[in-house]
Amino acid sequence: MAIQLYDLAGADPDRRFSPYCWRTRLALAHKGLAVETIPWCFTDKDKIAFSGQGRVPVIVDGDAWVNDSWAIALYLEKTYPDRPSIFAGGAPGAIRFVNDWTDAVLQPGLFRFIVADVAAAIDPKDRAYFRQSREQRLGTTLEEAARGREDRIGAFRDVLQPLRLTLRTQEFLGGAKPNYADYIVFGAFQWARCVSPFRLLEADDPVYAWRGRLLDAFDGLAGKALGFPV
Amino acid sequence: MAIQLYDLAGADPDRRFSPYCWRTRLALAHKGLAVETIPWCFTDKDKIAFSGQGRVPVIVDGDAWVNDSWAIALYLEKTYPDRPSIFAGGAPGAIRFVNDWTDAVLQPGLFRFIVADVAAAIDPKDRAYFRQSREQRLGTTLEEAARGREDRIGAFRDVLQPLRLTLRTQEFLGGAKPNYADYIVFGAFQWARCVSPFRLLEADDPVYAWRGRLLDAFDGLAGKALGFPV
Repeated sequence: MAIQLYDLAGADPDRRFSPYCWRTRLALAHKGLAVETIPWCFTDKDKIAFSGQGRVPVIVDGDAWVNDSWAIALYLEKTYPDRPSIFAGGAPGAIRFVNDWTDAVLQPGLFRFIVADVAAAIDPKDRAYFRQSREQRLGTTLEEAARGREDRIGAFRDVLQPLRLTLRTQEFLGGAKPNYADYIVFGAFQWARCVSPFRLLEADDPVYAWRGRLLDAFDGLAGKALGFPV
Repeated sequence: MAIQLYDLAGADPDRRFSPYCWRTRLALAHKGLAVETIPWCFTDKDKIAFSGQGRVPVIVDGDAWVNDSWAIALYLEKTYPDRPSIFAGGAPGAIRFVNDWTDAVLQPGLFRFIVADVAAAIDPKDRAYFRQSREQRLGTTLEEAARGREDRIGAFRDVLQPLRLTLRTQEFLGGAKPNYADYIVFGAFQWARCVSPFRLLEADDPVYAWRGRLLDAFDGLAGKALGFPV
């Protein structure tokens, strides 16, 4: 039986834009595990109340459920040890640092470029929740946070420099092949791609080429997703 | 025969303060390889001319020599596969990202807190070289770069947030045990510790506790080094 994944969706239920759910989607694909995604909106708290909290991703695997993308990654690695490892065969180690850099630096930085696009993409019933929760997080209005992105993009690209240096040295963060380190960082760019036509990366950036390799991975799983081909 | 390591030294030849040489020192210790360090000053270019370049670390291992800390790490892993792995048993993978974050973000940020202390610690014969090369890199004078560090320390501690999040979750960047990911980042803090009495970390910071574990590692190899116990 396929693993069920509660997956953040927009007004169009085919628009799946959570960076954390993308981490899980690609981890499941890496392990070759079948998945049935269930579109979920921010305010559908009752649908995942069984998990004791209100955010996705949540997976249901037979009698087990797991929430939180990192916990899901650990669960998949432990539960399916005979499938290809998402952690290069060992403990996650430095992959956890990639996770925390993405959460603390990359995604908050990226959010200010796509905030208006996310607001436009979500289900209308989620609008009040999204505005209230995100304005609290941002410390300002959505409109103010979105302002002047063309002028800020250079500074954002500077923040990507560690990523760029690594991807000049190796094809993937995982090395010669992608692993969960790649899916974490890629999830952030896929979040943007699913909702926003704004061009974050220049075509000659090694990060752009790497993103292209991941859009193509697993028969184009991410590349075929509803979004903007920028 | 012990591996020889050309190791950056200050006016006091016992002061070994290169962050890159510390990466190598700890990698050698992790592999249990004997080392003979050779104190080296910035302007001793002739002593390492055999390596075709002018920077340390350089190691000499029998008939082989290797320069550049990353290349040395790869060399040690490949040449001594039966010794404990510094890369968690596989390819470096995400450890390369830790390396590039340290080079591009952590060390440039940290340098502005210790620049005057480094200038005071180096061999007098290196002073003109150090000023010229570092002022070019900094785009300002050493004195200007050093100014007002007490006022800037909060912003620097914010930059450590990804590290802090990881070290709240696991004892080391490598996981339950340290590996080369730890030695890379620790090298930056050890660089500071060897030259500067300035307190970079608060005692309740998980990064401080982690640094302490690495100061104690390998019978206190780093903790016993000449420096400032802050």
